[in-house]
Amino acid sequence: MKKYAIGVDFGTESGRAVLVEVASGKEIATAVYPYANRVIDEKLPESDVVLEPDWALQDPMDYIRTFQNTIPAVLKESGVDPADVVGVGIDFTACTMLPVTADGTPLCVLPEWRAEPHAWVKLWKHHAAQPEADLINETARQMDEPWLERYGGKISSEWFFSKALQILDEAPQIYAAADRMLEAADWVVWQLTGVETRNSCTAGYKAIWSKQDGFPSKEYFGALNPGLADVVADKMTTDIQSVGQKAGELTEQAAKWTGLKVGTAVAIANVDAHVSVPAATVTEAGRMVMIMGTSTCHMVLNEEEHMVPGICGYVEDGILPGFFGYEAGQSCVGDHFAWFVDNCIPGAYEREAEARGLDIHALLEEKATQLKVGESGLVALDWWNGNRSVLVDVDLTGMLIGMTLATKPEEIYRALIEATAYGTRVIVEAFEENGVPIHELVACGGLPEKNKMLMQIYADVMGRPFKVSASKQTPALGSAMFGAVAAGKAAGGYDTIFEAAQSMAALKEEAFTPIPENQAVYDKLYAEYLKLHNYFGRGENDVMKRLKQIKADAKK
Amino acid sequence: MKKYAIGVDFGTESGRAVLVEVASGKEIATAVYPYANRVIDEKLPESDVVLEPDWALQDPMDYIRTFQNTIPAVLKESGVDPADVVGVGIDFTACTMLPVTADGTPLCVLPEWRAEPHAWVKLWKHHAAQPEADLINETARQMDEPWLERYGGKISSEWFFSKALQILDEAPQIYAAADRMLEAADWVVWQLTGVETRNSCTAGYKAIWSKQDGFPSKEYFGALNPGLADVVADKMTTDIQSVGQKAGELTEQAAKWTGLKVGTAVAIANVDAHVSVPAATVTEAGRMVMIMGTSTCHMVLNEEEHMVPGICGYVEDGILPGFFGYEAGQSCVGDHFAWFVDNCIPGAYEREAEARGLDIHALLEEKATQLKVGESGLVALDWWNGNRSVLVDVDLTGMLIGMTLATKPEEIYRALIEATAYGTRVIVEAFEENGVPIHELVACGGLPEKNKMLMQIYADVMGRPFKVSASKQTPALGSAMFGAVAAGKAAGGYDTIFEAAQSMAALKEEAFTPIPENQAVYDKLYAEYLKLHNYFGRGENDVMKRLKQIKADAKK
Repeated sequence: MKKYAIGVDFGTESGRAVLVEVASGKEIATAVYPYANRVIDEKLPESDVVLEPDWALQDPMDYIRTFQNTIPAVLKESGVDPADVVGVGIDFTACTMLPVTADGTPLCVLPEWRAEPHAWVKLWKHHAAQPEADLINETARQMDEPWLERYGGKISSEWFFSKALQILDEAPQIYAAADRMLEAADWVVWQLTGVETRNSCTAGYKAIWSKQDGFPSKEYFGALNPGLADVVADKMTTDIQSVGQKAGELTEQAAKWTGLKVGTAVAIANVDAHVSVPAATVTEAGRMVMIMGTSTCHMVLNEEEHMVPGICGYVEDGILPGFFGYEAGQSCVGDHFAWFVDNCIPGAYEREAEARGLDIHALLEEKATQLKVGESGLVALDWWNGNRSVLVDVDLTGMLIGMTLATKPEEIYRALIEATAYGTRVIVEAFEENGVPIHELVACGGLPEKNKMLMQIYADVMGRPFKVSASKQTPALGSAMFGAVAAGKAAGGYDTIFEAAQSMAALKEEAFTPIPENQAVYDKLYAEYLKLHNYFGRGENDVMKRLKQIKADAKK
Repeated sequence: MKKYAIGVDFGTESGRAVLVEVASGKEIATAVYPYANRVIDEKLPESDVVLEPDWALQDPMDYIRTFQNTIPAVLKESGVDPADVVGVGIDFTACTMLPVTADGTPLCVLPEWRAEPHAWVKLWKHHAAQPEADLINETARQMDEPWLERYGGKISSEWFFSKALQILDEAPQIYAAADRMLEAADWVVWQLTGVETRNSCTAGYKAIWSKQDGFPSKEYFGALNPGLADVVADKMTTDIQSVGQKAGELTEQAAKWTGLKVGTAVAIANVDAHVSVPAATVTEAGRMVMIMGTSTCHMVLNEEEHMVPGICGYVEDGILPGFFGYEAGQSCVGDHFAWFVDNCIPGAYEREAEARGLDIHALLEEKATQLKVGESGLVALDWWNGNRSVLVDVDLTGMLIGMTLATKPEEIYRALIEATAYGTRVIVEAFEENGVPIHELVACGGLPEKNKMLMQIYADVMGRPFKVSASKQTPALGSAMFGAVAAGKAAGGYDTIFEAAQSMAALKEEAFTPIPENQAVYDKLYAEYLKLHNYFGRGENDVMKRLKQIKADAKK
């Protein structure tokens, strides 16, 4: 009898379940639930309490409704017997966190806290905790905290303790009422299994935890705010479990929500980008996975610990057990091309695309593909949304150089794509120079699917083969793989994620290999990019920051 | 009885006559003749001989047809008695030159040379003599020629001896057949008067002549090409006459063409940009005239000789008798904004402009005007067409810095306008640092008429009042003024161009004065511009040139 696993991928706007055949990784059925309350960034549901700028919340009941809607739907669509579903895995955006009571009830569902914004889920892109992040970084530097270096020297306002400290600062009554503060990823697993767990991935990448040193000290947290000194002991479980473990089994209630059997194995929670790594066939050192969408996440495994300046962080057992998982990021990739299309495409091009029944991106790609490498004479710095890796500087901005009166829109479009490839090469070189070699790139996410020119440019710029994950829903497949591992071989799953990856993960046949003539020209262009990158990014000319300051002053 | 003068302005696409009242400068009637053969840049008329790239020729008969069509038209329109027209002046594009026989017949009208491209008029924008210009500059440096410094260290491919040498190099039979080679400006005056003259303006600015030193030596010309050694003695009149002089009087034939009286005074020829200076009321030191169109010409007068690095040149008596006339240039102004509108305006903006019945420039100005100074966070280097003054480098290209995902088209548009203003400020500062003070700017040309935001930006960036010439056809008015001076006071004109300017030239009432708050912010932005200008323009990072080389290699 064939066995199946289900992966549930919790995104920003919706949740998605995919039912996968364990033996082959074949995706049998998919269902999507768009969150009823979506991203809450203007006012709270029901109470209509208005939120301040930069806030982004979610409704935890939308996650439960995802289970209730999508899992029955994939069972129904596939006709699979629930008894043949051996395991469930989930992945989530991160850091997406919430305060709950001791039994796991979100504070925001309690009538007394329903109109209090801080009682709700803080979504990853809640950016209102910047003052707290600044304090966290400044204090860490003053106290010479050893962990700061693991995170490229900077903790983000998006991360766990920035958000927790904002709750304490602005709503101490919520902080006091919270028995636990945890990742939504861990919370949904708790709801499925009745067991509270904390996964090594979000703990490591988002909550300053490491397998060797644990969390920062009580003294450090006390220095941020005396009320925060005992945050780890009082508000968090310290039993961190590695991804690839089993969290527990489906409760009766969760079985009712989903139509699955009581006792079905549930995997330790995971993060969308990280869970994609084995689903993109990568379970060893040397092959970098790039999750390419509005921004790009770069994931690399290595057996050893290396300090790589400017990356987002590295976590032992953070991606796969037994490996240090390294993460880097580029903040502006798909967003970059979307900005260009929204703001810089002449009407004549729009009309041509319409007349020919083409998507505007497809028209631009068609025109840009005809350009030889270097023919545009343009180089851009891809910093329209700041630079995450390796400069870790949100105040950097974009630059474009080389325009003449003959410069065409498709040349600029291609230059922007090339700039993101140069940005990736800077990251690859930073890894390699610090002991983390990379000999192949594997992409997943929406962008590479659609743009072959982009893939060839990346292969040529990087001088490395560039492959693409076969699945169009790589995170959900990865979660299903971890679900199969939670079940174990005896129950029809796998004993390790490595075995699961071998059978369930695949690459597309089409791969992009570097074209030597292109590579030679891109080496020259990259040298120009790097010189400009260092000139504008490393303090020689801080014009971008001064312009931002002038801009801020002008808006006062 | 009222007296009148006629100015004829020979442009790139058409010739224009304006009939002006001598006492007031009032423009009574205007007529335009679009050249039948326009700019000849693909193949010769009749013979269909195909031209090489970068060629741009004209048909001298189009200039005669301009006289035949426009002067009778303004007489008819105004009803003015030809006996009351005291003088005629002309201005021309430059260097626009042609080979003729001893009696002034253009070689291209002779049947034996009609199919030879080098027999035709070489228009100012004929750019095929670059190898000759390179040789002229290289040889001048080697021979340490003292005049090179007067021209910012570089002779242009557009100028007289580049074009003359190209004729000798490529068509020695034409060079041999030419009894004279001269500016079209001087040729049309010859056609009106029967007298060959050579004006000090084109001789000085385009043909390396100075009042003190004359032309370069026979040895120098011989070093370029032995056949060129005697070019000055054999092919050119050396009787150079200052602008403001009378060239002669209308011949019988010219009277027939025009309907004017035989004996009407004709002024020494002049150049469009230079003739605009007194017509914009500027007859003294300290006020810079900017002729703003696709590019900008900057004209300043000073009583003394000063070496100003990076300007186009300076000529004693070149603009007005008794002054050193200094000229600088920006290669990309109106062209810059036109490029943006053609290549970077989203369809949504086009539709909005259409729906509201607005010109797209007007819509952009409306949106850009609402921005506070510095609010865009953008700075550009205005080198889309290289940099004339003060870097004298055609291989420089454009740059834009400071973009974010929130950057809007109108912000880029405004940044491009601001960049041209910063470019002008560099020129103004170069003049002032070298002994040529400037306390006021006066604009003429098509651009300032249409764009009040641009005018205010220039005033704010420069910190100087910015005024506008009252005439919409400043060059033609200036030519008419010189026509009145050629006639002299006794005949109802003026004895000097200074007197003529006092009565005939005027400014618009609306003037733009610097707004101190804006000035303060622009001082900061200009400091950033200047730092980038020097970094990219003075050899610290020659990325623009390397990108151009990569581009050239890619196109091979």
